[in-house]
Amino acid sequence: MIDWDAMTARGGASWVESANDPEGGFPLDNLPYCIFSAENGRARPGVRIGSQIVDLERLSRAGLLEDLHSSINAACASRTLNKLMACGTVAHAGLRNRLKTLFDAGADHATRTAVSELLTPVDEAALFKPVDPPDFTDFYASIDHATNVGRLFRPDSPLLPNYKFVPIGYHGRASSIVVSGTPVRRPRGQTKHPLASNPEFGPTRNLDYELEVGLYVGTGNAQGEPVEIALAGDHIFGVSLVNDWSARDMQAWEYQPLGPFLAKSFATSVSPWVVPMAALHPFRVPARLRTPGDPDPMDNLWSATDQYSGAIDMTLEVFLLTESMRAAGTEPHRLSRGNLRDLYWTPAQMIAHHTSNGCNLLPGDLLATGTVSGSEEGSAGCLLELSHGGGKPVLLPNGEKRIALEDGDEVILRGHCRRDGYPRISLGECRGTVLPSS
Amino acid sequence: MIDWDAMTARGGASWVESANDPEGGFPLDNLPYCIFSAENGRARPGVRIGSQIVDLERLSRAGLLEDLHSSINAACASRTLNKLMACGTVAHAGLRNRLKTLFDAGADHATRTAVSELLTPVDEAALFKPVDPPDFTDFYASIDHATNVGRLFRPDSPLLPNYKFVPIGYHGRASSIVVSGTPVRRPRGQTKHPLASNPEFGPTRNLDYELEVGLYVGTGNAQGEPVEIALAGDHIFGVSLVNDWSARDMQAWEYQPLGPFLAKSFATSVSPWVVPMAALHPFRVPARLRTPGDPDPMDNLWSATDQYSGAIDMTLEVFLLTESMRAAGTEPHRLSRGNLRDLYWTPAQMIAHHTSNGCNLLPGDLLATGTVSGSEEGSAGCLLELSHGGGKPVLLPNGEKRIALEDGDEVILRGHCRRDGYPRISLGECRGTVLPSS
Repeated sequence: MIDWDAMTARGGASWVESANDPEGGFPLDNLPYCIFSAENGRARPGVRIGSQIVDLERLSRAGLLEDLHSSINAACASRTLNKLMACGTVAHAGLRNRLKTLFDAGADHATRTAVSELLTPVDEAALFKPVDPPDFTDFYASIDHATNVGRLFRPDSPLLPNYKFVPIGYHGRASSIVVSGTPVRRPRGQTKHPLASNPEFGPTRNLDYELEVGLYVGTGNAQGEPVEIALAGDHIFGVSLVNDWSARDMQAWEYQPLGPFLAKSFATSVSPWVVPMAALHPFRVPARLRTPGDPDPMDNLWSATDQYSGAIDMTLEVFLLTESMRAAGTEPHRLSRGNLRDLYWTPAQMIAHHTSNGCNLLPGDLLATGTVSGSEEGSAGCLLELSHGGGKPVLLPNGEKRIALEDGDEVILRGHCRRDGYPRISLGECRGTVLPSS
Repeated sequence: MIDWDAMTARGGASWVESANDPEGGFPLDNLPYCIFSAENGRARPGVRIGSQIVDLERLSRAGLLEDLHSSINAACASRTLNKLMACGTVAHAGLRNRLKTLFDAGADHATRTAVSELLTPVDEAALFKPVDPPDFTDFYASIDHATNVGRLFRPDSPLLPNYKFVPIGYHGRASSIVVSGTPVRRPRGQTKHPLASNPEFGPTRNLDYELEVGLYVGTGNAQGEPVEIALAGDHIFGVSLVNDWSARDMQAWEYQPLGPFLAKSFATSVSPWVVPMAALHPFRVPARLRTPGDPDPMDNLWSATDQYSGAIDMTLEVFLLTESMRAAGTEPHRLSRGNLRDLYWTPAQMIAHHTSNGCNLLPGDLLATGTVSGSEEGSAGCLLELSHGGGKPVLLPNGEKRIALEDGDEVILRGHCRRDGYPRISLGECRGTVLPSS
C-alpha cells in the first residue's frame, strides 16, 4: 500500500525560477507528465516544471535515470505514457524523487547544466495525446449532476433507485479521445423532435460539453481478481481534465435501452498534463458526507482508509470563448466553478466497483468521473444543467445566450488544488473549439 | 469498392487432403486466420486449411510471400492479427490468392514440400486470442431478441420506438475478451431482489450466454469522416463467433440509465478463427425484408448494394455440456439453432451507423451483432429467451433443467455456412466453461 504520509512531503525551491511562483501551478510539488515534441522532433515523454518541459527520453539517455528501475528507462523511449504508467508504484516513486532532486535548488552546478540543456519552454512545445487508453470508462459519480439531469428526463423519479448503491458507469469510446486544442467537428446523427412522427438525420442542434476529471490507471489487475478498495489508490497513476462532448438530442433518441453511444463517441478531449496522484495527496479530504437516510456503501466499496484518502479538494472551472468574443478580443467568460470533492463516489470506489466482477484494468485505462456538478447555482459542469434544460439560457457578458454550443465556441476547462501552506497545483487546461458540421 | 463477384470464385481441390471433404468446413474456400503456437514456440499468425495450420511467419520468412505487399510480410511477424487487418483490401486479396495458389492441388512438388514443412495439425496447436481489439462495440441487431427481452423488462412496450430507426449498440469492454477454451469465473456483483429493500453483493444467480457474431474491422476511418454504406463492406476484414456472457440479475439492477456495465465486462469469449469476408461472399443474401409498416432505413443506412451484399446466410448453434453430462460421457446437447440472416440490421449498416457521427474505427476493432435470435421456437440465442424469462426452464435429455448457467456448464457456440454447389464453410467453435465464484 502507498505510504500516503510520505507523499505529503513538500518540495522546496527549484533552480527553475518559474517553478517557484506559489500561484504558478507547476512547482516542484506538481511535475505532471506529458507527451511533447520540440523543434519538430518526434513525440516523447516529458515532465513539466514551471514554464518548462524536461525531455525524459534525453534525461534517460544522458544516464541521469540510470540507477532507476529499467522499466522506467525503457518507458522514457516510448511515444505514449502507457509504458510509464505500467512501471508500478515503487518505480514511479523512484522517478518522482529523482526528478525532485534534479530540479531542487540545491542541485549542483553540473546537474543544473546537464538538465538545463534538456528543457523546452512549454510555449514552444507541441503537446500530444498523453496516453492511448486501452479502454475508457465514464462514471456518473456526481449525485448533483445525476439528479439535475434525471429531473429533466424523468421529473417523477430524478434519481434512480440504484444510484446510491452502484457507482454507475459505462464503457466509452477510446479511439476518439483527442488532446486539448484539437478542434471538434459538430457531429451528425439521428434526432427526433417530440412532435415529429419520425426521426431526422443531420447535425446535432444540442451540442454540450461535460466537465470531468479523468483517472489514469497505473498498475492493472488480473482478470478475475478484484482490487480491494483499501488498495485501490495504488492503481491510480494520475489525473487529467476531460471534456466529454455530448450531443444531447442524439442522446435522448438513442440511449434506451443500452446507454449513450454516438452522442458521445465522436470526440472526447483530454488535457495534455497527467498530474501524478502523489502531487494531489495534500488535497485529499474525507469522502462527501452521506445525508441522513442514505445507505452505507456496500462492504466492497468501503474502507476506513478510503474515507480519508477518498475525495480530492480540486477546484474545476469552465470558460467559454465565442466567435464574437474572440473577434472583440474579450477574455473567456467563466460559466461555472465546482469542486471534485462534491462527488458521491470516490476514485477508490470507482476502481473497486469496476473490478468487483473480475474485470481487468490495464495500465493507461482512462476512468472519467462523469460531469462534476455541485449543489450551488453556477457549479454545474454542463450547459444542459446551467441552462436548466434549456429553459433558462445562460447569458454571456456581451449579450449572447447559450443553451447549447454554437459553431466557433471554444470550451476551456481548468482545474487546480489549493491549500494553506502549499503551493497551488494546476491541472492546466483542456480546450476545444466547435467546427461546423462538414 | 470490393469486386464481390470475383470473390465468389470457388477454390478447387487442395493437396491438403483434409481440406477436400465438402463437409469438413475448412476447404480452400475458407482459410481462416488465427494466432497459434506449435511445440511451445511463440504465438504467431497462421491460416487453417483442413485439419492443419500453416505458419504465416515462416511462410513469409521462407520468401513465399516475398512479392506481396511489404505490410503483409511485416504483419506475419506480429503476435496478433491487428497488423494484418490493417493492411487493406488489396493486400488481403493478394495474400488470399497466394494462399489458394500454394495449397492448390495443382501446386508443384517443390511448393508442396516447402509448405508441408510449415504445417501443424490443429490438434497439436495452442490457439490464442486472435486480435487485441482497440475498441469493442456490441450491437443489438436482432429484432427478435430485442422484442423477446423487451417483453420481459417492459411488457407494455417490448420494442422501443427507436429500434427500427437506430441500429442500437453500446461500447463494450475490450480488455476482458478471451479466446475460446478460457474458463469463465462466475462474477460477483450487486443484485436486488424485487421484494428486498436493499441490494446484496455476491455471485450472480443468473449467468447466461449470448450467441453473437463478431465483425473485425480491417481498414479504419479517420475521425470526422463517416464511412458511406456502399463502401462499408470494404472495412470488414472477417468474422468470429462471440459469446457475450451476461449476469442478468446484475444487469437488471445496474443498467439504468447508462446501459450494461459490470454485467457483461467480466468476460467475452471469441472463437480462435477469423473467417475472412471473402470466404462468406457466396452466402450473402438480401437483407431481411421489412414487414409492411416498418420505416425505410434512413438515407445513410441504405444503399442498393447493401440490400444485396448485406445479410449473411449463416447457421448458428448453441450446445450445452453440463458436469453430469460430462461425467456420463454424453455428447453436448443442442439448445438452439438460428440464422444470422434474421438480423434486422446488416453488417454494413452497423459500420455506416457507427461512423455516421465521425467516430473513427481502428483496424482490429470488434463489432458484435448482439444476441442472434430468430422468430421460431428454439432459435433464440440465450437462456433468458429460451426459458421465457425463467418461466419455462429448458429441459435437458438427462432430466436436468436450466434457466441460467450452473458451475461446470460448458457452452459451445458453432457456426457454418452452407449452399448447394459450395463446400461448407465453418467458423469453428467458441467454448467456455463456468467456474465457481472465487
